[in-house]
Amino acid sequence: MSTFVVVGGDAAAMSAASKAKRDDPDLDVVVFERGEWVSYGACGLPYYIKGEIQSLQDLVSVTPEQFREERDIDLHTGHNVVDIDPDEQTVTAESDEGTVVQAYDSLLVATGAAPVMPPIDGLDREGVYTLGSMSDGKELREYVARARSEGDLQQSDSGPACQFLDSCNGPVGIVGGGYIGIEMAEALAANDFEVHLLQRGDRILKAFSEATSETVAEHLAEQDVAVYLDAEVEELAGDDVVDAVVTDDQRVPVEMVLVGTGVRPRTELAEGAGIELGPTGAIATDAYRETNVPDVYAAGDCAEAEHVVTGEPAYVPLALTANRHGRAVGATVAGTPTEGGGVAGTSAVKAFEVEAARTGMLDHEEAREAGFDPITETIEARSRAGYYPEGGTVEVTLTADQESGRVLGGSLLSEYGEGAVHRSHALVGAVTEGITLRELSNYDLAYAPPFNTTWDPVLTAAKVLEGKR
Amino acid sequence: MSTFVVVGGDAAAMSAASKAKRDDPDLDVVVFERGEWVSYGACGLPYYIKGEIQSLQDLVSVTPEQFREERDIDLHTGHNVVDIDPDEQTVTAESDEGTVVQAYDSLLVATGAAPVMPPIDGLDREGVYTLGSMSDGKELREYVARARSEGDLQQSDSGPACQFLDSCNGPVGIVGGGYIGIEMAEALAANDFEVHLLQRGDRILKAFSEATSETVAEHLAEQDVAVYLDAEVEELAGDDVVDAVVTDDQRVPVEMVLVGTGVRPRTELAEGAGIELGPTGAIATDAYRETNVPDVYAAGDCAEAEHVVTGEPAYVPLALTANRHGRAVGATVAGTPTEGGGVAGTSAVKAFEVEAARTGMLDHEEAREAGFDPITETIEARSRAGYYPEGGTVEVTLTADQESGRVLGGSLLSEYGEGAVHRSHALVGAVTEGITLRELSNYDLAYAPPFNTTWDPVLTAAKVLEGKR
Repeated sequence: MSTFVVVGGDAAAMSAASKAKRDDPDLDVVVFERGEWVSYGACGLPYYIKGEIQSLQDLVSVTPEQFREERDIDLHTGHNVVDIDPDEQTVTAESDEGTVVQAYDSLLVATGAAPVMPPIDGLDREGVYTLGSMSDGKELREYVARARSEGDLQQSDSGPACQFLDSCNGPVGIVGGGYIGIEMAEALAANDFEVHLLQRGDRILKAFSEATSETVAEHLAEQDVAVYLDAEVEELAGDDVVDAVVTDDQRVPVEMVLVGTGVRPRTELAEGAGIELGPTGAIATDAYRETNVPDVYAAGDCAEAEHVVTGEPAYVPLALTANRHGRAVGATVAGTPTEGGGVAGTSAVKAFEVEAARTGMLDHEEAREAGFDPITETIEARSRAGYYPEGGTVEVTLTADQESGRVLGGSLLSEYGEGAVHRSHALVGAVTEGITLRELSNYDLAYAPPFNTTWDPVLTAAKVLEGKR
Repeated sequence: MSTFVVVGGDAAAMSAASKAKRDDPDLDVVVFERGEWVSYGACGLPYYIKGEIQSLQDLVSVTPEQFREERDIDLHTGHNVVDIDPDEQTVTAESDEGTVVQAYDSLLVATGAAPVMPPIDGLDREGVYTLGSMSDGKELREYVARARSEGDLQQSDSGPACQFLDSCNGPVGIVGGGYIGIEMAEALAANDFEVHLLQRGDRILKAFSEATSETVAEHLAEQDVAVYLDAEVEELAGDDVVDAVVTDDQRVPVEMVLVGTGVRPRTELAEGAGIELGPTGAIATDAYRETNVPDVYAAGDCAEAEHVVTGEPAYVPLALTANRHGRAVGATVAGTPTEGGGVAGTSAVKAFEVEAARTGMLDHEEAREAGFDPITETIEARSRAGYYPEGGTVEVTLTADQESGRVLGGSLLSEYGEGAVHRSHALVGAVTEGITLRELSNYDLAYAPPFNTTWDPVLTAAKVLEGKR
């Protein structure tokens, strides 16, 4: 009888545990999760805070009881793994009930990621939040509920006044213009907060194309979100409670601040066990997600993976990769060595009434470092046939290699519901398979007037960029 | 000075003419179109008849005047080409003004397709329509307008009564359950006609998967369309005017019939010039769309093209291929030999409140003939995250080769707006590049709760079918 131990309880962890047990029911599968929640959809938290999802429980796809009873997985919540001993092949976990030492034959480290805290003062003030866990989500929702009920009781004469809205539940600050910042801008604006979003660089959503960034920023402004670019936040000021975001050149009064400046891999446990990190600072693995330590795997937000364009390690901590790589590890430890595939750096975001997706390599500096000579073009096209009575605009940015014509990356934006995100599926295939602009422009994509123009915008973009080579 | 002559005036023809002139402004480009309309979106006709598009003119993307004045194309409408002489390199066209003989250096035959008329009696009765041209569209719209205004004036006591609806503009019959039949069912039902759709085989949309066919048929029934399967139509009965569709075992009273039983390539002109047809009965071409006759090209609905899965000739007369191949011919005759790519047999259809797309090879008999050992599976999955407050169901059918795991084809269906059609973009790439189910299931597709589950339904389908190998 062999034992598979999993450290962590979310996407990669529980995908691995479930797949391993399903493929090999004789395997002992033991999971240690330090918190109380397992297998939850953290990506849904902004919509829970917004109020569109009523219970945190709704974000849980499989409950601890189901894992234990239906899937026969030995799941321990409230157990913090403090040590991995690769020589003895054991892990040590601490809980309220004491310390347990568990032997393993194979081990998955799925310790996830933690919010990156920027080097600014005042992060410990009351009213400063991050969104990295279910309990973070709970606290934010409680804040929203509290502020709303106070707003109902009094015409807010305590905190700072609204600058842009006739009435609001108090201005709030968001530090960081990535997808968490933007989804939270939507969630908070929907609850009548006046939202001030501060971005350090010169554009939001910097993983996307410049065109996408600009269009989303314009859309946020239309939605009464105040967007501050090149805003170097120095302090979250206040007494006990935060009352302003202070940058190098201004002071924005707020009643609450959400810090969403990215995440870093949780690697401390792995490092302590001699598990090597890669160039990105996340845990290095091979194509089977095995680390340098035999029989020890790493997957999900704590690990890096090979980029489909360059073949080089990349750190793109997102849900699908965690699920996919966890599942591959589960299959592998159950006896069928399974590669989980690389990452294309694909992501999607809804921002109020627009949607956007990006995949592959868009940044010219990165592309040049990888040996390409990048060219980029952005086109705008109708999302449905021009004569069709509904529809909007799809904006497509493509980046390709000048010399070979190879498609390196893409970024798409449309009104919500007009298909930018699902259309990006075509580009994921293109960057993964390494096809050229001409090959892409010759794809026989689906067409009918209610869905696109005869040449889908993706094809038009490929034609236009090919024409510039 | 070289002359490029184009026979035909729609997608392939005008794409070729425009591209050739743009790439080589010194080229003389002469177009002969026998009708009055050029460069029109025939795919929009059902929505014009439905009443969602107000003018036939709205379906025209570029007018004859624009072609002549802005693009410097010598366009002759009302000119019917009756002869091609490959030895002399001339075409002969007849018009009201007489006969012209035009010399060419290169020639494109883009004569399109004509509706297939099934071998049944009564096709010449009044009230029997097809939908193959702009004038067909005009007649159908006039019929709808006339029936509606008569319906307003009298409680229809003339023609047959409605069977299923409390009131209607008279029952109408549609012979054929392909995309034209289905789009016209929507168009006619929206105008309060009681629609009877008769399909010869045991399912509608037979190019799609059985699952898609069944779900669309159920949806049509929910929309009060009477669907008759295995209905062998023998006669469109009546005196002067059709009044019933008669099958081998029933008689369906109707006031009008639309026959939509597919199209056949118009090849007579080409055949007369010694241009060879391929195994599909359409004009055979090489990868550059050149026929067996040097400097004579064929593209669009009159020509076949190589299927991306088999590499063998296929006849899939659809708008994108016509545009793409026309454009490629234009580039070629202007001096840059250009392949237009193969066909994947991709198509999309909206049927009332559902949307569907298909691509590649789904039919097991065809797949076996091509040397594959096909397996198929259909899955149903949520179109957005389960906890997200909106969304529906995406049904995905995949067909793959048992031995290699190669993805051969797919069929997708969802509620309209839930992304079945745009998601099919992923499968077009998969069948075109010849990737396996495992490779597809490892694709890093975009994910966020408002757009899909963590594993997009396309990925889930790939995983499930891979699990059955």
